[in-house]
Amino acid sequence: MRALYRQRLQALRELLARQRVEALLVTHLPNIFYLCGFTGSSGALLVEPDRATLITDPRYSTQACDEVHVARVRVAAQGLLTAVAGLLAGRRRRLKLAFEAAHVPVSQRDELVRRLGRQVHLRGVAGWVEALRARKDAEELERMRASAALACQVWTEVLPLVRPGVRELELAAEIEYRMRRAGASGPAFDTIVASGARAALPHGRATAKQLQKNELVVFDWGAILRGYCSDLTRTVFLGRAPARIRKWYDVVRAAQQAAWAMLRPGVAAEAVDAAARSVLQRHGLARYFTHSTGHGLGIEVHEEPRLARRQKTRLEAGHVVTIEPGIYLPGMGGIRIEDDLAVTPVGATPLTHVPRELLEL
Amino acid sequence: MRALYRQRLQALRELLARQRVEALLVTHLPNIFYLCGFTGSSGALLVEPDRATLITDPRYSTQACDEVHVARVRVAAQGLLTAVAGLLAGRRRRLKLAFEAAHVPVSQRDELVRRLGRQVHLRGVAGWVEALRARKDAEELERMRASAALACQVWTEVLPLVRPGVRELELAAEIEYRMRRAGASGPAFDTIVASGARAALPHGRATAKQLQKNELVVFDWGAILRGYCSDLTRTVFLGRAPARIRKWYDVVRAAQQAAWAMLRPGVAAEAVDAAARSVLQRHGLARYFTHSTGHGLGIEVHEEPRLARRQKTRLEAGHVVTIEPGIYLPGMGGIRIEDDLAVTPVGATPLTHVPRELLEL
Repeated sequence: MRALYRQRLQALRELLARQRVEALLVTHLPNIFYLCGFTGSSGALLVEPDRATLITDPRYSTQACDEVHVARVRVAAQGLLTAVAGLLAGRRRRLKLAFEAAHVPVSQRDELVRRLGRQVHLRGVAGWVEALRARKDAEELERMRASAALACQVWTEVLPLVRPGVRELELAAEIEYRMRRAGASGPAFDTIVASGARAALPHGRATAKQLQKNELVVFDWGAILRGYCSDLTRTVFLGRAPARIRKWYDVVRAAQQAAWAMLRPGVAAEAVDAAARSVLQRHGLARYFTHSTGHGLGIEVHEEPRLARRQKTRLEAGHVVTIEPGIYLPGMGGIRIEDDLAVTPVGATPLTHVPRELLEL
Repeated sequence: MRALYRQRLQALRELLARQRVEALLVTHLPNIFYLCGFTGSSGALLVEPDRATLITDPRYSTQACDEVHVARVRVAAQGLLTAVAGLLAGRRRRLKLAFEAAHVPVSQRDELVRRLGRQVHLRGVAGWVEALRARKDAEELERMRASAALACQVWTEVLPLVRPGVRELELAAEIEYRMRRAGASGPAFDTIVASGARAALPHGRATAKQLQKNELVVFDWGAILRGYCSDLTRTVFLGRAPARIRKWYDVVRAAQQAAWAMLRPGVAAEAVDAAARSVLQRHGLARYFTHSTGHGLGIEVHEEPRLARRQKTRLEAGHVVTIEPGIYLPGMGGIRIEDDLAVTPVGATPLTHVPRELLEL
């Protein structure tokens, strides 16, 4: 891993040089993990041309030394920003220091200015490390494949438990328990089990509601394994689905296939979204599709690129995205199908392998 | 609950009036939950003297209408800040608008300025809603008692599974599974199970390491139940503890008792911290106590007040805090004991009720 972290830092340094800044203060924890492997919940990574310094608090001093080999580790007893100021004090001339504007609260920027005002030219920048992270390297793809495989395996195990009378949160508990026992550090997000009318909530977290016969049930779950997320959705019907539901399901599935078929380098993210949307449109269902078609996936469960309207980003080999069209009929229920796919030089390959047909249980 | 949310909004409005601002844009999700009950992951609450408006994205339109009765709900198709700007457009005169400086990234503030520059006087403020949240009302105390009771119950269930050979992450999985099945929406944080030398990591998340005989094992876990966190730590010894370990344990326990005994309205937070620290000091162990004595607990697992050095905040009845001194001996292990306590008019009452003695298993 050490060589990989060095490569990632090197790529970032080339970006800094092109952007004519002398240092970047990385404060977004997923970015820090990507660049140096630190997994603590408190840290800042100062990346300079000739060195990198991880600042953390005393709770993480031992852990940081164990995990981080491509940066010096400094333990800050008096707050991370005080330590950053200390590191930069005494430099001969004003430093051009960039910070992550989307991840530094206004109050912290003000503190940086107070402490460093004379020593640095501060410049807020956006998405530099995220742009590197969007293209997964071989190690990352392997971890994501493993994270997806774990989530798929758990689905197979939990499916026999899905029946009328069981509570949504029991199924969520089973899913999360089995992911954890299989090595996940946790769920990638609060597991969604939404049945009946609740299936019309795109983010319907599991409740004490019991599943009933003749209901749709939407499951949306994923694991974090060795730092990387998976994110799947399946919809099942308890009983024999009426023709109308089967028809809706088939349209959502066709929308997913249409978006999936668009995935290859060079295609604009908005075109993938439009492909799913136009299938739903043809069947008069587009108005029930209230979110975007998908999102990048990796260290974070939502990252670049976003497969949504007005997203001009072009896909590249190494991007990993979800494709997850859905329809939500208030009071009636909902249907969503979601898979994780890696963009390859010629198309896309799925990381998730569980049947996509409507299951009637 | 509706009456409670109204009371909370009213208390906030009185603060706005005293501070001479006309509106507060609340963007920190725990603050939004506190003020109006919304549990989605995307929202902004604009609080004005005569009304409140929750802005969310289309994924949460149904959920927001179900959950929120003390604010108008507006669904933003083009981003929350665009919707906020739309709400404020067309006002007759410049509005004095406060925002939460600790929870608004620099990039979002810049966007607000771009969209609203002429219409508002923007003012970054800190800790306004958090200050209200620090003093729990009766409903909150009841939820916190239930959350703590759930975490305690699970400890009793899991203890028989703690034995040599079992992996840390299996125990973490058991704890989280049982909390979930008992109604928790999730763990309040990544469950810590840290055994042997790993117990010297104050935040040692569970790994695949197997527990061994003659090891200390630190468990730190908590649930989120109806929106409120619990947070406990217990340390056990696998086998018969050597005298040295029993002695250390007793010192940590005495440090906890000393801090606990300080809890009552009017006492400075730093004095509680000092009480724990001085017990460890007397036994030459203070240098191994690398974090603060405790923290406020509620909707967030870390909130006001902080029981740490240089914290001048005075305790008040209704504050709920953890007391969690610990010592960490690199390479050897660690000991921490943590309970949750509510400050009362005359002292403090524990929310957590599981034995605090060293368990030798």
